[in-house]
Amino acid sequence: MLQLYIGNKNYSSWSMRPWVLLRQAGIAFEEVSVRFDSFDAGSQFKRQLQAVSPAGKVPVLVDGDTAIWDSLAIAEYLAETYPDKQLWPQDKAARARARSVTAEMHSGFAALRSHCGMNIEARLPEVGAILWRDQAGVRADVQRLVDMWGELLAQHGGPMLFGQFTIADAFYAPVCMRLATYALPVPQPIADYVRRVQQLPGVKAWIDGALAERDFLDFEEPYRIRRA
Amino acid sequence: MLQLYIGNKNYSSWSMRPWVLLRQAGIAFEEVSVRFDSFDAGSQFKRQLQAVSPAGKVPVLVDGDTAIWDSLAIAEYLAETYPDKQLWPQDKAARARARSVTAEMHSGFAALRSHCGMNIEARLPEVGAILWRDQAGVRADVQRLVDMWGELLAQHGGPMLFGQFTIADAFYAPVCMRLATYALPVPQPIADYVRRVQQLPGVKAWIDGALAERDFLDFEEPYRIRRA
Repeated sequence: MLQLYIGNKNYSSWSMRPWVLLRQAGIAFEEVSVRFDSFDAGSQFKRQLQAVSPAGKVPVLVDGDTAIWDSLAIAEYLAETYPDKQLWPQDKAARARARSVTAEMHSGFAALRSHCGMNIEARLPEVGAILWRDQAGVRADVQRLVDMWGELLAQHGGPMLFGQFTIADAFYAPVCMRLATYALPVPQPIADYVRRVQQLPGVKAWIDGALAERDFLDFEEPYRIRRA
Repeated sequence: MLQLYIGNKNYSSWSMRPWVLLRQAGIAFEEVSVRFDSFDAGSQFKRQLQAVSPAGKVPVLVDGDTAIWDSLAIAEYLAETYPDKQLWPQDKAARARARSVTAEMHSGFAALRSHCGMNIEARLPEVGAILWRDQAGVRADVQRLVDMWGELLAQHGGPMLFGQFTIADAFYAPVCMRLATYALPVPQPIADYVRRVQQLPGVKAWIDGALAERDFLDFEEPYRIRRA
């Protein structure tokens, strides 16, 4: 059976993407949880990961003798291995657009990612308000999301970005969690999409797992001294 | 005909990847050069790009009515549109590995990318020696390259990472340029791979274009006051 190595569900946005993709698509897999301790070379985390992947990062998908790392490579691997699951849109132009916005997520949104780390359990609306006031980069990243999602939802009619659930939604699921945690202001149609993503069974299952965790990791918590 | 929008050849590492891929694969395309001026919202660069891509960044591939942005989405689009070009390895496990290392480049190597910006025309060995002494992140990124390339070259026998030229080599071509510009120390088999990449006709053509440019852009030149 496929194995997916992941980090903490509360914090690991990269792990969330392929996990949600597999779960939402109904592809059976075994979850291997590698708790974050530190990312130092000698850490338990690095030693456990390096046994399966030379990159030493989560997520890693293991399929028999093949280890695939990095969330986007995993997504493409699953799309070609399970064509019946239609993980990308079937229309060629829509698929090209889905790959574009997915790759844009993969290499971009640096301000949002650095200032608004994923932290599913936390509620940080006041931190979000300060970031929104002070960080032009965060505002620009959210504006780009609003434009992109608004256009795609209008074009395909929802409920997901390309109609049905695809890899693109899985890649933006952690962004939806960030918008919620920091209560960043978005127009109603965008807030509705965020809520629909949070209600996907695969996303709900991940959120439940995150809320059940008890780790509090200082290096993932720039805004809190403890869990509420 | 396909159109590829690119930035300055001397500086734009993201543009270099699909350009080299197209050229090396012998896929005909028209180059549309969008000179970097600034990345401000009202800049000529942003206005010209936004007419074809909502992300407002290079590279953008335009195929009829379809605009594909982000280098990795372009690579996947070309791989599926031109299967006879074998832009990914044909073996499934090798293809999974090629996607893994390509995606790793796409989202990683932050220290190398931030400290050693691509600057093909420049020769900065002394800057490189200081960075090598002071920046543990740069050393770690280069070590990861040495391990990855060394393993792949040994496994597939060269001359390229997966035997024949693939998307993975196109994605690491700008890294080869950085290693050369900053004269970062690597073992001989790795230096030999860098030289082989630089000698690929598609890469040589890009380098020639970079050397023919006359722009000197302060925001891309943290280490120089003018061209030599």
